[in-house]
Amino acid sequence: MRIAAFTTKDGLQSWGVINDENQTILCAADLEEMYFTFLPETIDELIEQGNEGVLAVASALEKHKEDPIAEPYELSEVVLTKPTNVQRNVMCIGLNYDEHIKEFTRDKKEAENELPIFFTKRPNSVIGPNEHIQLHTHATSMVDYEGELAIIIGKRGANISESEAWDYVFGYTILNDVSARDLQRNHIQWFLGKSLDTFCPMGPYILLGDKQEKQFTLKTFVNGELRQSGDTHDFIHPIPELIATLSRGMTLEPGDIIATGTPSGVGKGFNPPRYLKSGDEVSITISDIGTLTNPVR
Amino acid sequence: MRIAAFTTKDGLQSWGVINDENQTILCAADLEEMYFTFLPETIDELIEQGNEGVLAVASALEKHKEDPIAEPYELSEVVLTKPTNVQRNVMCIGLNYDEHIKEFTRDKKEAENELPIFFTKRPNSVIGPNEHIQLHTHATSMVDYEGELAIIIGKRGANISESEAWDYVFGYTILNDVSARDLQRNHIQWFLGKSLDTFCPMGPYILLGDKQEKQFTLKTFVNGELRQSGDTHDFIHPIPELIATLSRGMTLEPGDIIATGTPSGVGKGFNPPRYLKSGDEVSITISDIGTLTNPVR
Repeated sequence: MRIAAFTTKDGLQSWGVINDENQTILCAADLEEMYFTFLPETIDELIEQGNEGVLAVASALEKHKEDPIAEPYELSEVVLTKPTNVQRNVMCIGLNYDEHIKEFTRDKKEAENELPIFFTKRPNSVIGPNEHIQLHTHATSMVDYEGELAIIIGKRGANISESEAWDYVFGYTILNDVSARDLQRNHIQWFLGKSLDTFCPMGPYILLGDKQEKQFTLKTFVNGELRQSGDTHDFIHPIPELIATLSRGMTLEPGDIIATGTPSGVGKGFNPPRYLKSGDEVSITISDIGTLTNPVR
Repeated sequence: MRIAAFTTKDGLQSWGVINDENQTILCAADLEEMYFTFLPETIDELIEQGNEGVLAVASALEKHKEDPIAEPYELSEVVLTKPTNVQRNVMCIGLNYDEHIKEFTRDKKEAENELPIFFTKRPNSVIGPNEHIQLHTHATSMVDYEGELAIIIGKRGANISESEAWDYVFGYTILNDVSARDLQRNHIQWFLGKSLDTFCPMGPYILLGDKQEKQFTLKTFVNGELRQSGDTHDFIHPIPELIATLSRGMTLEPGDIIATGTPSGVGKGFNPPRYLKSGDEVSITISDIGTLTNPVR
């Protein structure tokens, strides 16, 4: 099941369930009203509710199948927005694909490190689909894209074992870990170069998890040109390892976002580098989830 | 003016203004009731209100001076708690005192870097005074203290110039940037080693800023033994530079916490290193602000 947050022409903000066959979205508020099922007002609340919330949605969908009185919106007539209202910093994995390590770093310590590298992005950096990535030319001249699969944590927990990890995944979304390469390098720790306003496009779709391993393919396009092509099968540190490592002494909370790293093909990897410029458009497509597109200015 | 959040024996949660002369705290809720002045319920709301909130407190205190009908609590009869409810990750400066650089790192890039190094700590790591710092022995065997002055941002802003920076400082508090040295080193980026649960003791007092530069001295004691002694006059990157650098393209928000770096004398700097162990007690005293004490277990 895929869900998304949206705004209607009349300014109604809600969320709903995507129907892939006819490209429509069933509004959660309509489902609630028509089928007397209590549903949360936002995806953030749905995540907080855990299994219970997801079961309520499934039950409402079942009733809709039997008696389709709730009218879905055409996806083309609504504006999809960022799926969640991120509070804490987004957590990211630094180098999780072999080929990206080769293009990215000559630092031996970074390249040969056996443990995952974690850093964060400010909540202020999160934007939704079709919102502009700002170039911040007064602060950086090397703005780069990084297409990534992100997982959304659905359950509070610490010291989670790898075998339990999938239970903690609420779902998957698409994330662009936009990076100012000069700030990232010049300030040594990556936080600042990763956290400028608008540097974390996210969404629009969340594919709900099914408590087991799932494989995705990812492609990033700049102005329609394929730049990155990855398969989560190639992760150096698979999702259960990331969850187990992060949660060892650090409690994960519902709504936490973990970006899983980017494959090779970032702008910095080209010779000469191909950084983003005003007028560019970055699109990231992940199998079974969808496409996240953002213009640059 | 110093303020602090507290809980009374009856379980009332509030905040108030410290009277240094007689070691009492005037409860904001009492000031509001007695002097018909609208005051926010929490320090977080006070920070959000900016100047207006601070002026309301000053006005209520003026009325109290004329007509002291509001009864203060003895500081000894309340429990001081963490001063704010931190939402976004705490931002920290890596290496901001010369002597600490010498004791901390042999990495040439880190030691000679001319720009400040920024990283973050999870909101879950924040605890109040007298709460236990957990050793997380299953995750680390090198838990270290770092006494630091923290500033609290009082006003939303981006691209703040150094000359305007003091306008954005709501106040100052004490912060212990507890660090798992093995995780910090082994994961290259410092986020994980800095973010374990309970790794960010903070408070209890906030000294309100007065929109101009202020100098502090800082001392850290472990079990009463002086370990760190610093003067903010020795900052490599003074507060206006930190605010200007962080806000270049990155919007700062009211309530954001920025820890300004630690002086020499951390456990890692000793030969052999003197990491924290169960039963230890860490106290950090900063001039004009107060003392933050936390036991370790």
